[in-house]
Amino acid sequence: MAAVGLSACESAVARNAAAGAGDPGEWPLLAKVTAPGDIRGLDPGEIAELCTQIRGFLIQKVCATGGHLGGNLGVVELTVALHRAFDSPRDVLIFDTGHQTYVHKILTGRGADFDGLRQEGGLSGYPSRGESAHDTVENSHASTALSYADGLAKAFALRGEKGRRVVAVIGDGGMTGGLAWEGLNNLSVPGSGLPVVVVLNDNGRSYDPTVGGLAAHLGALRRARHEDASTTERSPAPRLVANTVFEHLGLAYIGPVDGHDVAALESAFDHAGSLDRPVLVHVVTAKGRGYEPAETDDADRMHGIGILDPATGAATAPGKSTWTDVFGDEIVRIGERRADVVCVTAAMSKPVGLGPFARTFPDRVFDVGIAEQHAVCSAAGLAMGGLHPVVCLYATFLGRAFDQVLMDVALQRQPVTFVLDRAGITGPDGASHHGMWDTGILSLVPGVRVAAPRDPASLRELLGEAVADDRGPTVIRYPKATAGQDIPATRRVDGLDILYDPGSRSPEVLLVAAGVMAGPCLEAAALLRGSGIGATVVDPRWITPINPALIELAARHRLVVTVEDAARTGGMGALLVEACADAALTTPVRPLGLPRAFIDHGGRGDLLARHGLTGERIAAAAARLLAGSSDEPDDPAHE
Amino acid sequence: MAAVGLSACESAVARNAAAGAGDPGEWPLLAKVTAPGDIRGLDPGEIAELCTQIRGFLIQKVCATGGHLGGNLGVVELTVALHRAFDSPRDVLIFDTGHQTYVHKILTGRGADFDGLRQEGGLSGYPSRGESAHDTVENSHASTALSYADGLAKAFALRGEKGRRVVAVIGDGGMTGGLAWEGLNNLSVPGSGLPVVVVLNDNGRSYDPTVGGLAAHLGALRRARHEDASTTERSPAPRLVANTVFEHLGLAYIGPVDGHDVAALESAFDHAGSLDRPVLVHVVTAKGRGYEPAETDDADRMHGIGILDPATGAATAPGKSTWTDVFGDEIVRIGERRADVVCVTAAMSKPVGLGPFARTFPDRVFDVGIAEQHAVCSAAGLAMGGLHPVVCLYATFLGRAFDQVLMDVALQRQPVTFVLDRAGITGPDGASHHGMWDTGILSLVPGVRVAAPRDPASLRELLGEAVADDRGPTVIRYPKATAGQDIPATRRVDGLDILYDPGSRSPEVLLVAAGVMAGPCLEAAALLRGSGIGATVVDPRWITPINPALIELAARHRLVVTVEDAARTGGMGALLVEACADAALTTPVRPLGLPRAFIDHGGRGDLLARHGLTGERIAAAAARLLAGSSDEPDDPAHE
Repeated sequence: MAAVGLSACESAVARNAAAGAGDPGEWPLLAKVTAPGDIRGLDPGEIAELCTQIRGFLIQKVCATGGHLGGNLGVVELTVALHRAFDSPRDVLIFDTGHQTYVHKILTGRGADFDGLRQEGGLSGYPSRGESAHDTVENSHASTALSYADGLAKAFALRGEKGRRVVAVIGDGGMTGGLAWEGLNNLSVPGSGLPVVVVLNDNGRSYDPTVGGLAAHLGALRRARHEDASTTERSPAPRLVANTVFEHLGLAYIGPVDGHDVAALESAFDHAGSLDRPVLVHVVTAKGRGYEPAETDDADRMHGIGILDPATGAATAPGKSTWTDVFGDEIVRIGERRADVVCVTAAMSKPVGLGPFARTFPDRVFDVGIAEQHAVCSAAGLAMGGLHPVVCLYATFLGRAFDQVLMDVALQRQPVTFVLDRAGITGPDGASHHGMWDTGILSLVPGVRVAAPRDPASLRELLGEAVADDRGPTVIRYPKATAGQDIPATRRVDGLDILYDPGSRSPEVLLVAAGVMAGPCLEAAALLRGSGIGATVVDPRWITPINPALIELAARHRLVVTVEDAARTGGMGALLVEACADAALTTPVRPLGLPRAFIDHGGRGDLLARHGLTGERIAAAAARLLAGSSDEPDDPAHE
Repeated sequence: MAAVGLSACESAVARNAAAGAGDPGEWPLLAKVTAPGDIRGLDPGEIAELCTQIRGFLIQKVCATGGHLGGNLGVVELTVALHRAFDSPRDVLIFDTGHQTYVHKILTGRGADFDGLRQEGGLSGYPSRGESAHDTVENSHASTALSYADGLAKAFALRGEKGRRVVAVIGDGGMTGGLAWEGLNNLSVPGSGLPVVVVLNDNGRSYDPTVGGLAAHLGALRRARHEDASTTERSPAPRLVANTVFEHLGLAYIGPVDGHDVAALESAFDHAGSLDRPVLVHVVTAKGRGYEPAETDDADRMHGIGILDPATGAATAPGKSTWTDVFGDEIVRIGERRADVVCVTAAMSKPVGLGPFARTFPDRVFDVGIAEQHAVCSAAGLAMGGLHPVVCLYATFLGRAFDQVLMDVALQRQPVTFVLDRAGITGPDGASHHGMWDTGILSLVPGVRVAAPRDPASLRELLGEAVADDRGPTVIRYPKATAGQDIPATRRVDGLDILYDPGSRSPEVLLVAAGVMAGPCLEAAALLRGSGIGATVVDPRWITPINPALIELAARHRLVVTVEDAARTGGMGALLVEACADAALTTPVRPLGLPRAFIDHGGRGDLLARHGLTGERIAAAAARLLAGSSDEPDDPAHE
């Protein structure tokens, strides 16, 4: 990607000005802001009014589209102050876990685009280099900001661009990730003196309240300020406080600063920017600030929301039972009969469905912070100590712990069960949040068993099998979706569920459906039958390693088409190709799945369709392959 | 793997007693030690003599076999004191970066096995659950110990085994890894009070001197002790010192303690073990202690050695030029003509060949500590800042940074070059150190280009192409081996190097050789020619993504056999299978490579042969596949 020039920014500014950042009648001051420079001349009263209008705009827009609300409501004043104290994009602003950039997007000319937030072709829910010159870093997985800042500051120093300041905004939640600590340790290399400003946005939580020794330390620092009579509430003078973790590690420390007081923030940032050394500004904010339904939501302060009524904060459509709900219910049942089953979450107890388990067995769920490496490695320790841990992660975040799955769990054959939620296409969170790499990395791990349930009943059954397996690691993966109705098998053969049998003595096509691809495969089989082609549909249940019975079944067909909601490379299909070749089977095996590409945000159904994972597209691919012709060269499922 | 019972340990003890831990004449006191209990009754004079004998034993044995010497010489007194203060295996001792367990192995009955250290079928160079009940954790990648300890302590607490103590020994180098910080943050969750004893073995270095803010803080603590008149040198009383990073994070702190004073160590450990809360004991040791060639080796204190003359510490056979040497030379040449090229190392400047570059361009090499995540993510920042970073890692450690390669570099198409040393079978370091997973994880990453040089000339050429590529990430991988002679191509066609052309108009077999597999493939082609089978040998140079010219070349043969020193799953061969199927090519493509299994330690040549990667085995496989027969079911290359 070419570096984004100012022209992209200017064009966004022009669009924003034309559209008036929504409805200028409702947000008249906001409508005048088309670039960061526009807010530098405002007086304190105007700044306060601007912040009020930004909050109103955010609540209305995000309730209409869904998105990340609570965190953005917490950083309104912080973001305004950053854009007044620093000169973006000459100074580089990096927001860790980039979903806290909505205010930044508004102030950099993208307010008019919020009606298309996180929709296909619309504004990204994260920073985007393609959207704006003010977005240097497209980050979304947590805890990266200090590392990017370290690299950028080193580059500016080597290239003689010393006047450019680098500012990294990171939450107390993000600081629980090891990568943030690696960044902190490097920023503070004695003598390097890189003028990086770390803004620690301390709101006391990620989804859940932040855990661990560092959170306790930050709490002590917050309390110390309240007890310090020399600091006034309205406008704390920037000061260097001794005796913090950060100073011991070599950074200057300024704070704590009231994160909803723009004047205090600006003063602290001005001071920090003048020090010419690494400095941490400890800013205290309230997640959900200024929106009562968020401020009073103890679960997660409306971290991420669907479409809501902005007046009440209530969902406008009743939720159907999701895969997460089914898991959350079943793990409690398992916990009731198995005292040795414990659960591990990386700061996402509720999003992964562990709420009921945590209420029922509070001593048996461990929130380790945004620390997937530790989640997995400590689970190995739990297993060595005689327990059966269930590590609950979003599929996309398993990539953070590949080495721990391989070396700390699998090499030592520890019975750890991984439950990967949001596997496959997730939708509006885009390229970084599709859970499409987990099968590929797990295929490399010796001894791991991976299951993909097709319906609620099979999730319950496979989860039971997983926690009963004491031979080594097991994995269950399922998508961000409603769980739907159960899909009965016609029969089970050697662990395979036959979902549809065309009845002919030598059926032509075998459709191998991984988990939720059962539905589209059944549709495809019906379509193929209409074209006179007999297709068997099988759900292998455990997709890794390949069940030998699947190879035998494949041998009784002319063509095998595998279908999975995951990257084709290294997936179930690729493993079946390998296994069939090793068995000298001549039946062609053709995997369908997601391409080796980054897939933008959009609706899950739309994106699956675009990549060929519908009944119609699967049937067409099978018919074409049976006829022996090549794929269309532009078929995106086969990039 | 079943839990190791005491019987395995007792059997080792019996072997050790029979063999007298080497030569009882040389090490008479050591010969009497067959289990940790044997050292608890010794008086101070005997303890000192025991430590002397352990050092003599280590120097003689490790110089004869090669292995990790410097670190083990530094932890002699520390390990003796641990086994006196704690009751292993009831109390669990975890040594981070497990190559520092040689003394532990000796004290737990495995001294007699040191003649076979790191050789096929012999003693592992790391902890091994199969070897001893005293080895709970088989760790080798750094920074895991605190996480294992956290999990074990939680399990013991839940299971009511509160009397069992968990001790994690971790170096100051290991503490630079983010996983260690995640562990520290979790150990110190307020109110949990898990009685974990963290022993911080502060020797000031990993290979290189340890970098970063934490190392500076530890230095300040060491100096503070020297200035503290209340502490005597011989026997420092355990004490709780306020105002350390560790106390701020919620652990008690004891130290610094002289790590070569067994009485002081025991006293500190006894105190730490009595506190019933998480506590860190800061122990200061000297790497290479007691062996002058190690103590005076400024490069790495003889961290890991080949076979040496123990009297002088000099290599007994002159070293040949390795792949590392060729890279180290070429990167200096590139640095001379490209001011924007900078290098990043994760605490391994010398082992990855960056010594000459660091001497020539000291401002352009960044040692980030044992922090692969930060190495990769900060490299993305360096690239965004206008530089071209070259990140030099061992291939096995890339797994620690998969998410950063995918999300922080590739998603944002940053021109970062990764140089993966020790790719493929490494040999004596065993399962955790074979670089056999890098190709599989990289195959998943959109837009990355991976090259495998076959000889010194192609390493120089491919490295030049990689740093000239500004479209996105590039990777060069090569093994731990001598680089050998250049292998000329007969011609280059569309980026492919044809190494051998059988001359017939329709050759039967195409052998696709990834990098160093060129030699064995040329041998195979010669053998096949002797059997009347014409085989072309091609080196694709860039193994990911698949060069379309390779598909055209494949179409002109009856059979394609790909050969790579990497896991078959997700490797070059699997990608070619996928690409050929997408092109509707009917020529069978059969990948040879390493199985989906953990491969034990042994000689590189022996292990390659065992897995079918020799000329003879490749020729046999090609002939068999050409004849259309199945693989032998027990062929380990096709597990």
